[in-house]
Amino acid sequence: MTVPRRDDPEGLARALADGSRAALSRAITVVESTRPDDRIVARSLLQALTPPATPAVRVGISGVPGAGKSTLVENLGVRLIERGHRLGVLAVDPSSIRTGGSVLGDKTRMPLLATSEKAYVRPSPSAGSLGGVARATAQAIPLLEAAGHDVILVETVGVGQSETTVAGMVDTFLLLALARAGDQLQGIKKGVLEIADLVAINKADGEHLLEAQSAARELTGALRLVRGHGVMPTVTTCSGLTGDGIDRLWDHVIAHRDSLDLETKRAEQQVTLAWALVRDELDQRLRRSPGVKSVREDLETQVRSGRLAAAGAADALLAAYDQA
Amino acid sequence: MTVPRRDDPEGLARALADGSRAALSRAITVVESTRPDDRIVARSLLQALTPPATPAVRVGISGVPGAGKSTLVENLGVRLIERGHRLGVLAVDPSSIRTGGSVLGDKTRMPLLATSEKAYVRPSPSAGSLGGVARATAQAIPLLEAAGHDVILVETVGVGQSETTVAGMVDTFLLLALARAGDQLQGIKKGVLEIADLVAINKADGEHLLEAQSAARELTGALRLVRGHGVMPTVTTCSGLTGDGIDRLWDHVIAHRDSLDLETKRAEQQVTLAWALVRDELDQRLRRSPGVKSVREDLETQVRSGRLAAAGAADALLAAYDQA
Repeated sequence: MTVPRRDDPEGLARALADGSRAALSRAITVVESTRPDDRIVARSLLQALTPPATPAVRVGISGVPGAGKSTLVENLGVRLIERGHRLGVLAVDPSSIRTGGSVLGDKTRMPLLATSEKAYVRPSPSAGSLGGVARATAQAIPLLEAAGHDVILVETVGVGQSETTVAGMVDTFLLLALARAGDQLQGIKKGVLEIADLVAINKADGEHLLEAQSAARELTGALRLVRGHGVMPTVTTCSGLTGDGIDRLWDHVIAHRDSLDLETKRAEQQVTLAWALVRDELDQRLRRSPGVKSVREDLETQVRSGRLAAAGAADALLAAYDQA
Repeated sequence: MTVPRRDDPEGLARALADGSRAALSRAITVVESTRPDDRIVARSLLQALTPPATPAVRVGISGVPGAGKSTLVENLGVRLIERGHRLGVLAVDPSSIRTGGSVLGDKTRMPLLATSEKAYVRPSPSAGSLGGVARATAQAIPLLEAAGHDVILVETVGVGQSETTVAGMVDTFLLLALARAGDQLQGIKKGVLEIADLVAINKADGEHLLEAQSAARELTGALRLVRGHGVMPTVTTCSGLTGDGIDRLWDHVIAHRDSLDLETKRAEQQVTLAWALVRDELDQRLRRSPGVKSVREDLETQVRSGRLAAAGAADALLAAYDQA
């Protein structure tokens, strides 16, 4: 089967719906691109897609490096495939923007999924800004769904605002944490507990099982104390290594999703995302502005030394931005 | 003494340093103003100030309505005045932008401070946006300091990003919470525990004393569990009504402040504030843009219904913004 060209949105949409992985890959490359002509194609491509009859299950998975995200995704993914699901795995890693490489979604870390015909694993795009990554990932999700994937896992590491971004495109946001000797939890980034729908203490196996169970109980109590608002996230334990608790974890994911008004949630997510993309673009323009670039260092130095007030510096930055 | 005119920054700076409350009031009115000519005067005014020989103590105080902020500020303020301090009380309440009135810093809620010569109480400005309020408040602080106030209390209620804004202009950010029957704390807004340097369980008096002490212990444990990063905030109890624990609370404030590299913290706060003011202005422009206003409702409806992808809507919003 010939893969439709990059500038043939209808052809790509048809081919990926017919099961062409090459067409899917090319389509995702188009939505990842920042080129203006690709953006126009991307828009037609998304219009041309046939959405799935049943909405796919979209799950975000977060946790710092070492929390065991890849092992969990691999173990969970294989189970889901055995149950007849088709799996899309995406990654959001804004740090890959700087390093040039992509840490997340690395296929070598998910060998079974990477070689399965029932799964499509895509590393994080490196699209120049979190907004760029968000734009690419948000558009890759409907592509994967139109290609027949009924479970989408979006993996992210705790960099900047990446968790909030991912939480804004999935139905259920799962945080992986680790129990640690002593009374702290490991792998919980500032603010992430606030947006988690579900928390799993991972690596609950062998000698660490009791520790993990105890940490889960304590975290449940702590969350009840400090989160005086909204629905409490469920806290559970699992082991990506042995598979213990993975089925229960998935049951929790589905239970959370069933509790949602999915249509409303997704509609509002898309509106929020649209404005976030607009603001990201304005922020990028500010950073790239030659006028701003030429004065920012001097102004920041003056503000740091107390010679210039913040408001004065803001006015000067805006003047430099408007002038250029 | 004649009060210098609004367009005489050097005169205002001299008069407020000489102790003229009328000049101080007028100077704050100038920095609260959004008029371009006032902004120019504000900049000269800030340049003309003589900073205090010893940096004032800047404390942010947050808590939802009913947490007892005013009573605490009144009780704490009177004690500080008795110890020889001069007190400036500012308020940040972005909700006053909409209501037109100002809830916070209402002088009738702090009768002793409002009538004391050693205190200057200023209600929240209503400057059109959180950025506007932030700009006004950040500039009022050095005015109060130049007028001889060596303790500045900035009160805020949990509206939008107001706590983050206030935390960005003070040395120590204090959160007031309440114990409540059951195992929850009251008055803790999403994300605020993350930025608090100090938490006080207020209304720890009479029959609620033990409850408050127990809540403080539990919160200490919960914070240790969920905040796996940085310095833990101290949790204490107090009663704004009886005054119990207020001296201890102030000792905690001073201990926290003493632990800081104050010069570096303030310098970085100012740089961050400058960029926040720039972004707020760009955001205001986006909201006010006639082009954006004319298309936003239609685009949002299309996105909600799934007829338009978020990225497409973002492109259309940006095009409308650029065109106008």
